[in-house]
Amino acid sequence: MFGHPDAAALTHLGLFALQHRGRESAGICTSDGTRLVRHAGMGLVNDVFDGACLERLRNPAAIGHVRYSTTGSCVDANAQPLLFEYAGGQVGIAHNGNLVNAAKLRRQYEEHGCIFRTSCDTEVIVHLLAKPAHQRKPDPLVHVLNHLQGAYSLLLLFPDRLVAVRDPLGFRPLCVGRLGDAYVVASETCALDIVDAEYVRDVVPGEIVTITAAGLDSRRFGDDPGGRGGACVFEHVYFADPSSNIYGQNVHIAREKMGRALAREAPAEADLVIPVPNCARCAGIGYAQESGIPLGRGFTTNHFAGRSFIMPDQRSRDREVRMKLRVIKDAVAGKRLVVVEDSVVRGTTTRGKMGALRRAGATEIHLRVASPPIRHPCFFGIDFPDPSELVALHRSVEDVRAFLEVDSLYYLSLEGMLSCVKMPPDKYCTACFSGRYPVEVSEPLDKFVLERRNVRMFQ
Amino acid sequence: MFGHPDAAALTHLGLFALQHRGRESAGICTSDGTRLVRHAGMGLVNDVFDGACLERLRNPAAIGHVRYSTTGSCVDANAQPLLFEYAGGQVGIAHNGNLVNAAKLRRQYEEHGCIFRTSCDTEVIVHLLAKPAHQRKPDPLVHVLNHLQGAYSLLLLFPDRLVAVRDPLGFRPLCVGRLGDAYVVASETCALDIVDAEYVRDVVPGEIVTITAAGLDSRRFGDDPGGRGGACVFEHVYFADPSSNIYGQNVHIAREKMGRALAREAPAEADLVIPVPNCARCAGIGYAQESGIPLGRGFTTNHFAGRSFIMPDQRSRDREVRMKLRVIKDAVAGKRLVVVEDSVVRGTTTRGKMGALRRAGATEIHLRVASPPIRHPCFFGIDFPDPSELVALHRSVEDVRAFLEVDSLYYLSLEGMLSCVKMPPDKYCTACFSGRYPVEVSEPLDKFVLERRNVRMFQ
Amino acid sequence: MFGHPDAAALTHLGLFALQHRGRESAGICTSDGTRLVRHAGMGLVNDVFDGACLERLRNPAAIGHVRYSTTGSCVDANAQPLLFEYAGGQVGIAHNGNLVNAAKLRRQYEEHGCIFRTSCDTEVIVHLLAKPAHQRKPDPLVHVLNHLQGAYSLLLLFPDRLVAVRDPLGFRPLCVGRLGDAYVVASETCALDIVDAEYVRDVVPGEIVTITAAGLDSRRFGDDPGGRGGACVFEHVYFADPSSNIYGQNVHIAREKMGRALAREAPAEADLVIPVPNCARCAGIGYAQESGIPLGRGFTTNHFAGRSFIMPDQRSRDREVRMKLRVIKDAVAGKRLVVVEDSVVRGTTTRGKMGALRRAGATEIHLRVASPPIRHPCFFGIDFPDPSELVALHRSVEDVRAFLEVDSLYYLSLEGMLSCVKMPPDKYCTACFSGRYPVEVSEPLDKFVLERRNVRMFQ
Amino acid sequence: MFGHPDAAALTHLGLFALQHRGRESAGICTSDGTRLVRHAGMGLVNDVFDGACLERLRNPAAIGHVRYSTTGSCVDANAQPLLFEYAGGQVGIAHNGNLVNAAKLRRQYEEHGCIFRTSCDTEVIVHLLAKPAHQRKPDPLVHVLNHLQGAYSLLLLFPDRLVAVRDPLGFRPLCVGRLGDAYVVASETCALDIVDAEYVRDVVPGEIVTITAAGLDSRRFGDDPGGRGGACVFEHVYFADPSSNIYGQNVHIAREKMGRALAREAPAEADLVIPVPNCARCAGIGYAQESGIPLGRGFTTNHFAGRSFIMPDQRSRDREVRMKLRVIKDAVAGKRLVVVEDSVVRGTTTRGKMGALRRAGATEIHLRVASPPIRHPCFFGIDFPDPSELVALHRSVEDVRAFLEVDSLYYLSLEGMLSCVKMPPDKYCTACFSGRYPVEVSEPLDKFVLERRNVRMFQ
Repeated sequence: MFGHPDAAALTHLGLFALQHRGRESAGICTSDGTRLVRHAGMGLVNDVFDGACLERLRNPAAIGHVRYSTTGSCVDANAQPLLFEYAGGQVGIAHNGNLVNAAKLRRQYEEHGCIFRTSCDTEVIVHLLAKPAHQRKPDPLVHVLNHLQGAYSLLLLFPDRLVAVRDPLGFRPLCVGRLGDAYVVASETCALDIVDAEYVRDVVPGEIVTITAAGLDSRRFGDDPGGRGGACVFEHVYFADPSSNIYGQNVHIAREKMGRALAREAPAEADLVIPVPNCARCAGIGYAQESGIPLGRGFTTNHFAGRSFIMPDQRSRDREVRMKLRVIKDAVAGKRLVVVEDSVVRGTTTRGKMGALRRAGATEIHLRVASPPIRHPCFFGIDFPDPSELVALHRSVEDVRAFLEVDSLYYLSLEGMLSCVKMPPDKYCTACFSGRYPVEVSEPLDKFVLERRNVRMFQ
Repeated sequence: MFGHPDAAALTHLGLFALQHRGRESAGICTSDGTRLVRHAGMGLVNDVFDGACLERLRNPAAIGHVRYSTTGSCVDANAQPLLFEYAGGQVGIAHNGNLVNAAKLRRQYEEHGCIFRTSCDTEVIVHLLAKPAHQRKPDPLVHVLNHLQGAYSLLLLFPDRLVAVRDPLGFRPLCVGRLGDAYVVASETCALDIVDAEYVRDVVPGEIVTITAAGLDSRRFGDDPGGRGGACVFEHVYFADPSSNIYGQNVHIAREKMGRALAREAPAEADLVIPVPNCARCAGIGYAQESGIPLGRGFTTNHFAGRSFIMPDQRSRDREVRMKLRVIKDAVAGKRLVVVEDSVVRGTTTRGKMGALRRAGATEIHLRVASPPIRHPCFFGIDFPDPSELVALHRSVEDVRAFLEVDSLYYLSLEGMLSCVKMPPDKYCTACFSGRYPVEVSEPLDKFVLERRNVRMFQ
Repeated sequence: MFGHPDAAALTHLGLFALQHRGRESAGICTSDGTRLVRHAGMGLVNDVFDGACLERLRNPAAIGHVRYSTTGSCVDANAQPLLFEYAGGQVGIAHNGNLVNAAKLRRQYEEHGCIFRTSCDTEVIVHLLAKPAHQRKPDPLVHVLNHLQGAYSLLLLFPDRLVAVRDPLGFRPLCVGRLGDAYVVASETCALDIVDAEYVRDVVPGEIVTITAAGLDSRRFGDDPGGRGGACVFEHVYFADPSSNIYGQNVHIAREKMGRALAREAPAEADLVIPVPNCARCAGIGYAQESGIPLGRGFTTNHFAGRSFIMPDQRSRDREVRMKLRVIKDAVAGKRLVVVEDSVVRGTTTRGKMGALRRAGATEIHLRVASPPIRHPCFFGIDFPDPSELVALHRSVEDVRAFLEVDSLYYLSLEGMLSCVKMPPDKYCTACFSGRYPVEVSEPLDKFVLERRNVRMFQ
Repeated sequence: MFGHPDAAALTHLGLFALQHRGRESAGICTSDGTRLVRHAGMGLVNDVFDGACLERLRNPAAIGHVRYSTTGSCVDANAQPLLFEYAGGQVGIAHNGNLVNAAKLRRQYEEHGCIFRTSCDTEVIVHLLAKPAHQRKPDPLVHVLNHLQGAYSLLLLFPDRLVAVRDPLGFRPLCVGRLGDAYVVASETCALDIVDAEYVRDVVPGEIVTITAAGLDSRRFGDDPGGRGGACVFEHVYFADPSSNIYGQNVHIAREKMGRALAREAPAEADLVIPVPNCARCAGIGYAQESGIPLGRGFTTNHFAGRSFIMPDQRSRDREVRMKLRVIKDAVAGKRLVVVEDSVVRGTTTRGKMGALRRAGATEIHLRVASPPIRHPCFFGIDFPDPSELVALHRSVEDVRAFLEVDSLYYLSLEGMLSCVKMPPDKYCTACFSGRYPVEVSEPLDKFVLERRNVRMFQ
């Protein structure tokens, strides 16, 4: 946010609205026009900030970040925004996405004498920026961005300006809003809504937006991807908030459509449609409307279960599902159910929920998943578990059905899913479903690629 | 809970499941068979207890309490269960409900030299119990209970026994479950579910259930109410969890029926049925099914908003609604909506939500409330605000409609509501809606009746 | 404190100055003239109070308490001041001392139907006060105090007055100061100093001082003890702060005199006088001056060791002494030392310190203790360990010397000690040294006398 | 510490013993032989670490740090040890002292593209180390150290080794101890004592000590300073703990000697010698012994005053002295006092203490300071205030006397002070007293030299 006296407090609200995007750490970095200050820590937004802290950060320009780690451990040093000083002065940086050539770049820079304080892929971007040879280029930032491969929606805060960048394939969403004379940049529109900012437009793939006291300026960078794109379709399926608009489309509406498409592709004979809370509620509504089967409520959620909980013993870890979700026994007993899920990853919690419905007396369970089977790792910013843990990896749909112990199981087809989103199919990255990666990934990547356990020599 | 080595930890889980019934304070009192220990404090269950604390409480018998105050301030000393010692030994007490003659009894006992440490109505019960004249009666507890007027579901923990009591009119729910050889007593069945206990039966109005190592014993007390009862219908409308069964009926099912009845009583021409999260979701499903108007989703809830939040300034308090509830603009824009609410108390937050839908582009808003207008105070355990703040108090339905700025407004009729619950109408207390109190309330009561501001003389 | 707008904050400062008198719990109770509020909790003053809390307590009259338990467990419910309500209105009570007939009184009152919430002896005082028969007496408070046996310096806060009471034998100190128009009452004068109050006079044994808006009023109660008294001499030896004046005499001066008397009674041939920090520093100065042996410094103290500390393993608990006290090896190596202690209780930490000096190279250690051997329990407010743990209990001085592994050991004689304090010998209680109790103690007492483990019958 | 399974916990104890050297932040970095982990935060050792945290750090090699900032703000990012990764692997670094050419080096490195995360002078050392040209040198570390000017006692932890470095002039102390097979390196011997380690020897100026599984290895670096040195004499005067031995001499003994020298240089006619707690107690003992005037006790200290305290209002900040120090009025009233201080910096707290003695009734106050007037800034690791705040800066001794409102004032002479320490005078840095800096300081330095407020250009 740039140009509002309460930028820190409003950024704080914005982070709160985006809390679903990351719960490991939270941070804010602000500028008074000449100098940056930063506060960041592990935990939820409400754990990291208090009033005194926001008071210290009170400045007219601010960037914030909530993190769920896709590169680097969940440790303090990695909490973003990161704040660095280099020959150009101070810079704060917040990164959504994942670079696929971070390890290679880091090795290069280390060999040239650079030192690293974090295991985030983000830190390497600042090293590139600080390199004198890059600074001498006509447009150093464009020059630097051209070295990066992968997904990056970036916010860079300099003492006198806020710079927003979206990679040329546009893997992650990023939008601009206005609140009076101030500008707001955020991953999702729900962060604009909470501060009453008006949506202006998306930062487009391959665009650099610079906001200064003089206003908003835009320039493009990167090779023209020739009409192709990498917009993460999983944002629509699961990650983004239903109230947000991303990629030019409301998330709830997309999910409702996926539910309708699913009903057309995989009808079922049943008494009730039961969506699994909370995410599948949108698709459930679509399925019910399309199928004509009444929508019911099979679960209630415990609104106080946001935090870790002390269990009497280890065995009761399986109680955790039960603590967040309660089955309404009388609503499902004796009923044939169509259960709608948005996606199935490991399958273990889904299995737990199906078991709970069965024990409550459901006579048939027809599970319908509003997206295709997940069978491939994501290198662009979604932290799926190790592929070996994906339930659909080496299993047929029938095997998954057996594992989940349901009477029937259908996934929405790739085509079906893509028919529900607004842009042409090749503007989306569907790699986790299809295995087709919009960017070549040359070396095997894992989340801890930047953390080495081997002893290096030092004389 | 009685008879389980992990009684404290399981009671802790049970309190967590009942958190919606009270968020001001939480406490647990346990017995090792000879001596009671207690821990209680202000805040949510997760704020009050940690692992070390539960370890200290580890004992085979336990009672717990979550509080939202209907008598007495929100202060530490009032956190239940209360623990006292008297000639009979130690007793821990947890009380759900509200005594209507507490002030009178307290005055009497103070005049006889009793001292009080809390401003809870509960403390007076222990004074009655400790009175030597009462102890000499054949059944002291029954004798004591006969002095009490009003609502009381009580748990009393003595070193060697757990006693559960429900007042003769049965204002508040109370049920018994079994987990192996242990017994569990709880306000709602959702607390049985979370510990995997099996529902056995309700404690019936006017029943004393005593659980010892020898098992469960039951006796009756009080005058026969001649077929009348005081089961709080507002538990079905709003207070209890949808997954719980109370008064012999599932809460979700009752609410769904109220939604259906509402659709019959007050149909509307509209494109979508939008329930207000979270409570009205059940009634919304019923309304949609009965009316044939598709159920939609107009709001998403922020799951991290359980706690207080630091606001940049006072004026942004109205941001609070927005922080918990986000409108899905694209889902309601250009639509004629039937909005279903479970009940309307002050009307201010409802008005805020209606305004948000309107700003998002809803063309018509037809508000349907699945219960009658609330126009009378509750003296039996629901903490409505001061009557002067009830929106429906001196307003016609049309006036309320104008205040809420909706296109049409209908409340479910009293008869309609009572047709959806299982017991005969005169088994319920509908006082907040109808003004008919099942027990005569002789003196004006307010929440702070036991806190005096006047100086008394002392020589 | 009565009559100052900042009474809560100043009481807070006073508690801080008196922190050495109790570290288990801290509390403050204040009055706005019509109503009392209270905050208390476990831990040090700084742990229990924060700014918001003091703001809530901001009222013109306040009493405070820091506790180290001599009756009752170290649990939350026992944190003083206690706050009760009875027919006379509200009363807050803070008690320094120990009643010897509390158990008997409590049994009596329980048999008459009273209920107790704490295991403090203090609570019974309020029951006596509330008893209607007592309230009808011409002077109820005097009537009540006549029932109490033992040590009690009491502060009672009523909405409109502050009452200070000191028992007829004056076991514990209590003094009155003035700050502008306000009055301050405190256990030691160091609490007056910290708030800049001027010392006025002691509350005398058997006096009730009442402070209201109209000023200070005094009356006497109790039987005339015929010139005898119970002023705890151990306050002078160890408990009170050296900067305080109690019983009409400065504590440091008394201790310095004890050091001088000790030098006369038990001279030693040595190179240096080493006082054990911190308490014996006064007596060390006296010993050095009288003996002509130079005073040295053998230890430094770690000022950060106030709190519990995480140890790598259990065996390193003996590291605790070392963490608080460090030996200055070069100052004692090769030296013959006179080590001055104020008193020896269990002997274990003294032994540890002597061993540390020995390991540092001291060639001779002549331990001189500036008080007689402790061989008897205290029933009046000092929490000595179980008598069986007193090192001097069944041991001759020679046996104690051998246990402590020192070259010689002398204790100050009872007469020597009493020659150093200002009042006549029979004004003091020397029971812990002499076994002569100023009040008959009829039943065996221990700290947990008010906590029963037996199951009582309840029908 | 290297080679002990409990290295983290023992380092934790060591930090606790060294807490007087820094209270702003604390941190520990440990190695399991292949990888480093770190935990650091703002506050005292006991605030930053808990048991779970030490458990995570449990490894056989550890370095720790407590910080009081002499370069860089008191912010989180500056908490040491710092942990970096570079081409050589990981390195943790803890620095005591202050580089005088840090700003120049940092500018150079920034111009070559380096980025900085902290405003500590320490970070630049790691950049030097990582530079490929330096790594290719026969002994990279020696090569790097030759670039550094100023004071640095360093601990470097690599996965497989611990390296201790002391600058060629030996500004700050650093010693090696042994605990079984393990080695311990610490600033003061009191940290060896607390873990029961045996003192082996000092790391000598210009020495690199490397500890690996194979044992301890030593090498030298730097130009021969030709018999001159920079051992900070202020460590002896004030900073180090009396129980520690530094520069081959016990701190207490040195201070006692300074007190004796002071008595010879500046005798006084008085009744009592009163040392100002706590630091001047050693010098007070010396003064008393040499002068024959008895040592008295004028103050007691509040052992609970270690932490910040809530004050009723701003004006009562002057209460802070009183909260830590209480005058024993009866001990000083009517007495002529020689008051011994170790040093006087701003003079404001000394003035407050003198005023308190005067108000308590002291008839004469002869202040004797056991070191010369402080008139020059320190660039080597002591954080004196801005020179303009030094009371002696542009004031004669007579003017300082008048400011402090004492009857007479004498400082120990430079020669007198140097006659009390063990090494030849030109082995010490006395710059704060004499203005003679052992190293030329080319550019004006202040604590925030590495924090820029100006906007730099970035394209």
